[in-house]
Amino acid sequence: MTGHLTPHVHGSPSGPAQRLARLTGIVPPMVTPLSDRDALDVPGLERLIEHILGGGVHGLFILGTTGEGPSLSHRLRRELIERTCAQVNGRVPVLVGVTDTCFSESLALARYAAVHDADAVVLTPPYYFPAGQPELSEYYLKIAGQMPLPLVPYNMPGCTKINIELDTLRQLLDHPNVVAYKDSSGQMAYLHKVIRLIEDYPGKTVLVGPEEMLAEATLLGGHGGVSGGANLFPRLYVDLYNAAVAGDLDLVRRLHEQVMRVSCSLYGVGKYGSSIIKGIKCALSCLGVCEDRLAEPFHRFRSHERDIICERVAALNEQMAGVRV
Amino acid sequence: MTGHLTPHVHGSPSGPAQRLARLTGIVPPMVTPLSDRDALDVPGLERLIEHILGGGVHGLFILGTTGEGPSLSHRLRRELIERTCAQVNGRVPVLVGVTDTCFSESLALARYAAVHDADAVVLTPPYYFPAGQPELSEYYLKIAGQMPLPLVPYNMPGCTKINIELDTLRQLLDHPNVVAYKDSSGQMAYLHKVIRLIEDYPGKTVLVGPEEMLAEATLLGGHGGVSGGANLFPRLYVDLYNAAVAGDLDLVRRLHEQVMRVSCSLYGVGKYGSSIIKGIKCALSCLGVCEDRLAEPFHRFRSHERDIICERVAALNEQMAGVRV
Amino acid sequence: MTGHLTPHVHGSPSGPAQRLARLTGIVPPMVTPLSDRDALDVPGLERLIEHILGGGVHGLFILGTTGEGPSLSHRLRRELIERTCAQVNGRVPVLVGVTDTCFSESLALARYAAVHDADAVVLTPPYYFPAGQPELSEYYLKIAGQMPLPLVPYNMPGCTKINIELDTLRQLLDHPNVVAYKDSSGQMAYLHKVIRLIEDYPGKTVLVGPEEMLAEATLLGGHGGVSGGANLFPRLYVDLYNAAVAGDLDLVRRLHEQVMRVSCSLYGVGKYGSSIIKGIKCALSCLGVCEDRLAEPFHRFRSHERDIICERVAALNEQMAGVRV
Amino acid sequence: MTGHLTPHVHGSPSGPAQRLARLTGIVPPMVTPLSDRDALDVPGLERLIEHILGGGVHGLFILGTTGEGPSLSHRLRRELIERTCAQVNGRVPVLVGVTDTCFSESLALARYAAVHDADAVVLTPPYYFPAGQPELSEYYLKIAGQMPLPLVPYNMPGCTKINIELDTLRQLLDHPNVVAYKDSSGQMAYLHKVIRLIEDYPGKTVLVGPEEMLAEATLLGGHGGVSGGANLFPRLYVDLYNAAVAGDLDLVRRLHEQVMRVSCSLYGVGKYGSSIIKGIKCALSCLGVCEDRLAEPFHRFRSHERDIICERVAALNEQMAGVRV
Repeated sequence: MTGHLTPHVHGSPSGPAQRLARLTGIVPPMVTPLSDRDALDVPGLERLIEHILGGGVHGLFILGTTGEGPSLSHRLRRELIERTCAQVNGRVPVLVGVTDTCFSESLALARYAAVHDADAVVLTPPYYFPAGQPELSEYYLKIAGQMPLPLVPYNMPGCTKINIELDTLRQLLDHPNVVAYKDSSGQMAYLHKVIRLIEDYPGKTVLVGPEEMLAEATLLGGHGGVSGGANLFPRLYVDLYNAAVAGDLDLVRRLHEQVMRVSCSLYGVGKYGSSIIKGIKCALSCLGVCEDRLAEPFHRFRSHERDIICERVAALNEQMAGVRV
Repeated sequence: MTGHLTPHVHGSPSGPAQRLARLTGIVPPMVTPLSDRDALDVPGLERLIEHILGGGVHGLFILGTTGEGPSLSHRLRRELIERTCAQVNGRVPVLVGVTDTCFSESLALARYAAVHDADAVVLTPPYYFPAGQPELSEYYLKIAGQMPLPLVPYNMPGCTKINIELDTLRQLLDHPNVVAYKDSSGQMAYLHKVIRLIEDYPGKTVLVGPEEMLAEATLLGGHGGVSGGANLFPRLYVDLYNAAVAGDLDLVRRLHEQVMRVSCSLYGVGKYGSSIIKGIKCALSCLGVCEDRLAEPFHRFRSHERDIICERVAALNEQMAGVRV
Repeated sequence: MTGHLTPHVHGSPSGPAQRLARLTGIVPPMVTPLSDRDALDVPGLERLIEHILGGGVHGLFILGTTGEGPSLSHRLRRELIERTCAQVNGRVPVLVGVTDTCFSESLALARYAAVHDADAVVLTPPYYFPAGQPELSEYYLKIAGQMPLPLVPYNMPGCTKINIELDTLRQLLDHPNVVAYKDSSGQMAYLHKVIRLIEDYPGKTVLVGPEEMLAEATLLGGHGGVSGGANLFPRLYVDLYNAAVAGDLDLVRRLHEQVMRVSCSLYGVGKYGSSIIKGIKCALSCLGVCEDRLAEPFHRFRSHERDIICERVAALNEQMAGVRV
Repeated sequence: MTGHLTPHVHGSPSGPAQRLARLTGIVPPMVTPLSDRDALDVPGLERLIEHILGGGVHGLFILGTTGEGPSLSHRLRRELIERTCAQVNGRVPVLVGVTDTCFSESLALARYAAVHDADAVVLTPPYYFPAGQPELSEYYLKIAGQMPLPLVPYNMPGCTKINIELDTLRQLLDHPNVVAYKDSSGQMAYLHKVIRLIEDYPGKTVLVGPEEMLAEATLLGGHGGVSGGANLFPRLYVDLYNAAVAGDLDLVRRLHEQVMRVSCSLYGVGKYGSSIIKGIKCALSCLGVCEDRLAEPFHRFRSHERDIICERVAALNEQMAGVRV
């Protein structure tokens, strides 16, 4: 633990909101290693968790977008929760994505996460029906009151078709069980407004999704990032976060440049929106960490793209040696 | 049974594609009566099924968009499948929405539907991750080959963020287990191209979603509709379909006018996209058929909107007496 | 003149709203023949006008979307207005697109059209800044009051980013100088609601843009179409319109099938949204009517696509002989 | 002149690309003061130019989005070019927006700007017809070759419906007459990729549109901003830019905070996308600089919103005193 996160005390009688006092730093959205359509790649999962934790990250977020949460069966999601919580074993807080189009299923998953000592749950808006903002606010407040763990609303309009507007967010932050916010809108002007808003809520934090925005978000008042690339190079993102908190602008620039190199070389090899997840999983497979199978509707890169990724991840690994502090 | 649908023979040794030879006519997308968040309004469900079947419909579609399928727990979806199939008991084909963001969950639901003697399954594209067209086509072909029942792909870009393009659709129609197509894009030029395309596949059919387009779709080569208003006034849509098939243009015009009256008076009372489902459920409650509770993220109309709906549904009932053949 | 349009009397002392009493039938959106970037193909223009009028159309619409109005210089737009009005010479009403992002430029173009005896002007919402509905309504009412000719608002959300909502449209229709409405949204449910709304305004009419929807729009209460394909085969669309007005369903079906053949064979050869205009201009060139040069940002088809179009337009011409009444 | 911009030498025999060697710093997008629909508020314009230049800005950009360029008549645009160039008189470079849906009109405006000694022209993609990327690239390359002044492509997908993709941008940057790029996409991950790309083109620069992103864009490799708020508080944005160039992180944070205060208090008073321009013009009117009339389809704030803006701009003025270096 780096001190950026207030650790929870297992078995503490305090309510959920006290368990995870302040969520900051790098909380990688872990990919889900699969060996078959409905089977975890268990050895790969174990290696991946250690690989990520070895980079000094401040938390671990499973079953998010990068984790292909909505594409996985509920059975597999529960197995992943159980295995991950057991292996992490309190070393860092574990956040569990409980995003679902059904209220009860999200709640059931959250309860399962609580039983296995996860630290918080993360939830996008329901993503089949586009809701109006008042409907969205009512939904979040209702489910926040029933969640057995602290809740992190998650803005992901590219997948959910709906943006959490600032007035709605203010209502969510007023709820004691909402402890942080994750924004993956990619809209920096919006994020800056969120940062300003959240200053009114001491102890509550905002994490940025796209890693290309981690440097500025942290330099200018944000509290950390949920950086997909931290599956591959966890130390890079931790270093960048620490440099930004310390105000070491030169180092921030060098590390941000490296983050952009990762993004530009690994995330644009395929043609579709799936290129990021495919790129990360493929690169992990090149590194020997875990398998690169994806959940439907996606599939792993074919050998041509795989060759490109393996070559580039090797080159990145070399460069990284020179950049690190 | 009107003869528009070839009935399936229970216990027949034929494979799935033979059980439902040609899907045509009015197949209402049944709303799901709820008495609590995760509880069916069972008496309401029984009344609703009889109310709809009493109108002479050609099939029944459960767990679609109007049925709030993605908002319901898997437990409740299974209970609804079992109860509906048992009560319909072969009087008309039952189509089951198995839309899910997880391949395995869709398949599990389809198997449950097959065991309970449903006749076909209906499936939108996965709706969290936006897929490219080749990814989409691969997904559909893979799942079509494993489905224990005939498959009806369902185009619903307003909820799924993706349109099934014509080249993709052609590949799906080439698969023997794809027996029909449901289009809710609302794009009439697209639908006309689908109608032309499907002429190359004798025995395969296309049903239109929005009931405002039922008249022209049927007049100009389509095969029927999945009309939400048929929850309320099933006979109206059946009469319109029959008039269009018979080429009785005067009657089509009168009935289409009545369909537009339903649409304009009941579906626009609320402010958001949820207004249609809220309006139908509320009107059913005014008629004493079933409860009007909605699944999250929506809620039933408050008393002010309810008063408006009850008044309008009464007026529509009176008008309908004069329009019917 | 077919009688579907009340002719205006040149030199009549009546105000603008009286000159064009009721706009119905086929009003082709004429392409603009170009011989150079800023030069009309004058002989081509003359042939094209006669070609279209020879098909018995009920009006002529210049400088619309198909006419590439917004891509042409104001000087060229004025030359086109002058030449077209002079050559048509009252044989059918001429409608002039005055769409512009600047209020004064639209007004200036409308005045030029009035001076040259055009019959009405057609205007989309301003298309750079997305306006709110109240802003849009205020804009239209203000300009309607100053227009020297009857005004036809034109809904084209694919190009303008904004849909004219029903409440806004009602306010526009309340204005005495708004005489008709053109809808190119492609949303049939919306168009049916417009048709219902416009029944409250005797003498005012609605024309549909996409020709694939001409049959049903006319069968079910619409008043005609602005069909791009009528540049090529004007008689086909006139026949279809007349058959629909006469309620001859069999003929409507045969002609609609032919319209779909035109659409499917000529409008999808290129890869982008420009394919329709490119296809029409190219086909006109194959037929020897006019040049196929396009205004920037588009360019004519290269020789490979051109060969395909020429072959297909020849085949369509042959088929057409057999379908016509 | 601060040295950030290489001044052009009037009457120099060098070609256009040499006149404006490197565009960096704060280049405010000036609003266009209007006294009537088609009339400049000339005294207001003169005061506004001096107000902005008094803040030490590095250039002046007229007829952009904030300048309501597309909403103004061509006559008025030319008058504004002439008056602005005359008054600025070489003190800073003047950039002229020549965005239009017609190639020839853009070119004509650019020639007018060149004659009056403007320094560069700025051009979005044509914004009526959505073009494919190859069409867009061809359009830009063709017009770049004919422009009498250096060209700055301007990415504004919210108004043009099209994003300039990186591969397209690379082709534009290869053209010698393209000297800089303005990105108003609001997508920070995209902007970071642009910054990386433009490193391959020494002497070429990228300016960011939304002022909320000015701090990080400049800290992390960008070259300045086209900040709307610099109409009001030019010194604030210049100070922020200079602090970011100097790497003075503490000062950057304080000034960025002040920029966010401007944004949050002045740009969200109205309900629509027009709120930013309305807010800036209204605030300028409160400050006594110029009139607040807007071009259609917009209108100035009514008295209620005006009272709010005047109060807030006064408060901001007070705060600003304490924040400045």
